[in-house]
Amino acid sequence: MTSHVLHLTAIEALPEIYAGDKLSSLLAEAVQRSDLRVQDGDVFIIAQKIVSKAEGRYVDLDAIEPSDEARRLAELTGKEARFVECILRESSAVLRAVPDRLIVRHRNGHVMANAGVDHSNVPASGKGERVLLLPLDPDASADRLRLELEQLFDARLGVIISDSFGRPWRQGVVNVAIGVSGIHALQDKRNFPDREGRPLRVTQIALADAAAAAAGLLMGEADEGRPVVHLSGLHALASGTSARDLLRPLEEDLFQ
Amino acid sequence: MTSHVLHLTAIEALPEIYAGDKLSSLLAEAVQRSDLRVQDGDVFIIAQKIVSKAEGRYVDLDAIEPSDEARRLAELTGKEARFVECILRESSAVLRAVPDRLIVRHRNGHVMANAGVDHSNVPASGKGERVLLLPLDPDASADRLRLELEQLFDARLGVIISDSFGRPWRQGVVNVAIGVSGIHALQDKRNFPDREGRPLRVTQIALADAAAAAAGLLMGEADEGRPVVHLSGLHALASGTSARDLLRPLEEDLFQ
Repeated sequence: MTSHVLHLTAIEALPEIYAGDKLSSLLAEAVQRSDLRVQDGDVFIIAQKIVSKAEGRYVDLDAIEPSDEARRLAELTGKEARFVECILRESSAVLRAVPDRLIVRHRNGHVMANAGVDHSNVPASGKGERVLLLPLDPDASADRLRLELEQLFDARLGVIISDSFGRPWRQGVVNVAIGVSGIHALQDKRNFPDREGRPLRVTQIALADAAAAAAGLLMGEADEGRPVVHLSGLHALASGTSARDLLRPLEEDLFQ
Repeated sequence: MTSHVLHLTAIEALPEIYAGDKLSSLLAEAVQRSDLRVQDGDVFIIAQKIVSKAEGRYVDLDAIEPSDEARRLAELTGKEARFVECILRESSAVLRAVPDRLIVRHRNGHVMANAGVDHSNVPASGKGERVLLLPLDPDASADRLRLELEQLFDARLGVIISDSFGRPWRQGVVNVAIGVSGIHALQDKRNFPDREGRPLRVTQIALADAAAAAAGLLMGEADEGRPVVHLSGLHALASGTSARDLLRPLEEDLFQ
């Protein structure tokens, strides 16, 4: 990190996103309507929800038959059984289930509430209620969006797909990175000794999570007006990274 | 949140901070040497370490006699017994103790590693090794710094005292707020229904934590070169807030 100034700008006037939309093109058009200049090293932080919408990750609840386990957890949590079934199909483990809260490990490895399955802001189809799942592979979505945006802007970019997570001991949600492409997800701190010659113990910062959290300061939620934020000044381009870098290995999990 | 653009600027050339220093004055002098304009609504995010240093929160390890419990946990974690004793004196509960990791609830309520007791970048006194504790009351420190900075800059400001925290299921550290004054710590999302008329479920964002995380993108650690970040554009001034707003009540803790 050599930058001393960061600028974050919410992209205005993105249209409502529908299944099959080419998100990168819609985003580039919105940027072209603004004053924003996109340069090498810039990062786009994109709310998971519009990526999922573009990918058509809807599930009709009418088509869902809850399992016994889903019914049991629905009873326990007070959530709707078909909704819980969707959550279970997205999850590799249930960590906690209590009234109003269902904390799972998503198949993609992220520990989160409701496996990211979203009931709100999902336009109802004619047929009945729908929910929206996370992108099938958020890192792959980030890779694809990055490559498309790099072509459209003729610049080397980073892309983060973000979602808002609760935390076990803290109130409120913060945005974290569930998909990362083109920039460091984790960044090693300079590993030289401190002024007294002691080696530093803490050596990695969750760069993509911090960038996602920063973008969250500008993203709305209720009206979905600003699901994309442009970040300049970070200087953290990297290849071969992914949001999987941010997952603590299961064997180091003290709080399963 | 009505802002669409945020600017974050690391304050350059703060001197090394010593016990008794008036941090607000040193910060104002550093700002005056820069191009930065400070305006109503701006926020200063200040690394805990320099607040602790200014407050002289040093402990001489030579003066510490480890308790039996400290010796037991030192054995278990591989940490030094006097260091563990300092951690225990700062803590209300030990959540997890395994090799290399000691997760506690600090007396101030924050769940964190080592109770924030810091071994690195602490100038050794002549007498022996010293460690640095968190500020005695980070919210009170934030209040005091905010009032002093508001006088120095003749503007209504927010102050966040930040520290870098690990997360149970994610790699790397992010900055969070351990002291808050003058701005929302938690912010209610607009509570009107979504486009389909369903009420939103998630209603609070951890604004001060997200601002701290954003500032963390610019703060170094190894060289402590940039322990203060200026944030403009947030428009979240509020009175009567504190970092305690960010603590999940004990009775809602599923992961003690």
